[in-house]
Amino acid sequence: MAVTARDNVAFEAGIKLGALYHQFVGAPVSLETAASLEQAIAASIGVQPYVKAITVSLDRTMIRESLSAFGYTELKGPMLKVDAVMQFKNYEASVGIKYTDGYPLMFIKEIKEI
Amino acid sequence: MAVTARDNVAFEAGIKLGALYHQFVGAPVSLETAASLEQAIAASIGVQPYVKAITVSLDRTMIRESLSAFGYTELKGPMLKVDAVMQFKNYEASVGIKYTDGYPLMFIKEIKEI
Amino acid sequence: MAVTARDNVAFEAGIKLGALYHQFVGAPVSLETAASLEQAIAASIGVQPYVKAITVSLDRTMIRESLSAFGYTELKGPMLKVDAVMQFKNYEASVGIKYTDGYPLMFIKEIKEI
Amino acid sequence: MAVTARDNVAFEAGIKLGALYHQFVGAPVSLETAASLEQAIAASIGVQPYVKAITVSLDRTMIRESLSAFGYTELKGPMLKVDAVMQFKNYEASVGIKYTDGYPLMFIKEIKEI
Repeated sequence: MAVTARDNVAFEAGIKLGALYHQFVGAPVSLETAASLEQAIAASIGVQPYVKAITVSLDRTMIRESLSAFGYTELKGPMLKVDAVMQFKNYEASVGIKYTDGYPLMFIKEIKEI
Repeated sequence: MAVTARDNVAFEAGIKLGALYHQFVGAPVSLETAASLEQAIAASIGVQPYVKAITVSLDRTMIRESLSAFGYTELKGPMLKVDAVMQFKNYEASVGIKYTDGYPLMFIKEIKEI
Repeated sequence: MAVTARDNVAFEAGIKLGALYHQFVGAPVSLETAASLEQAIAASIGVQPYVKAITVSLDRTMIRESLSAFGYTELKGPMLKVDAVMQFKNYEASVGIKYTDGYPLMFIKEIKEI
Repeated sequence: MAVTARDNVAFEAGIKLGALYHQFVGAPVSLETAASLEQAIAASIGVQPYVKAITVSLDRTMIRESLSAFGYTELKGPMLKVDAVMQFKNYEASVGIKYTDGYPLMFIKEIKEI
């Protein structure tokens, strides 16, 4: 069976989440700079093809709990909450990253024809 | 329509390629160390769930042409040739990264039920 | 001879520039999102210890010239212009990254006792 | 006072440790692939200018303790033990990364004229 638009929207959604995670995890962050990093991550991933919408939110409680004596920490996977919508031709995928069972889970919420 | 195993194999394949690219692009590399980096990238991405097979090959000609006066360069997207096979339940996806039209293209070759 | 404050200010300055470069090079960027990425990079690196001041500017001409058909590119080393001041005890180092002779050069401008 | 060879060896050593950390932290790793990743990191950073020697060792106990249900984890800063020697002109710096007080500390062991 040939590769479909539905396959591609799922594939492209995966690419963006994998890219986001491995590009930005490790970046130094504090409570004061979390908002700036959230916006830059969303803007950066949002310029890529097929991204219709994306929001990124960093867990302030986890940031606070991992602050070092120097008052900062690094972005860690579990801190990431991401919701994104991709469109490829007539298919739309809603996907996300959410901390689940001790693990930053990447998942598909819904794929639909539009 | 509910999310299917076929959707998930495409999504997981995308995650791995996005991760590979954004984790390792930028790593210093020379002609002498290209083989070590190829193997480590394949081994690293290969430990992730659903990866059945992966091969990574770095374009030696491009590496040679981008060497700085110091005899090394950085891994750049166009140098990457990747072939990977993912399995999710009863679906298998063959995907890759290949330099095409001046761009490191990520693509699905085939998805099939197994 | 024991390790001095002057040694440490140079060492810490190097750490920050190496971190900045390898954390953020590869991030997707367009003309519209360059400002957001500049601010987030400066804010992120600025939370680390010993950073007194940092400014990051991304070369818009280089971004424009590397835009893909999809209207975006990736942050590349040569696009980075960075000026930073570090302080360690009574020593201050002014350092930077600047595109020089085809290479994103990291350099010390001045180290002084304060 | 002008920038000296001693300043530069400390600065270059810092660059390499910052680069190593932010390039490779986040890479998927398991007990089976840790050796391959260690070698690739050392080889990659070792191609850069002024690096005379470098060894990288990843803490197997920490890797084992952070394995997810899928049998892998990600390289985290505390897992890194690095020893490196840099040379710049007639100065040599011995530096490292070592998990200390809950923090992956980067430090100068010694700088000497050679």
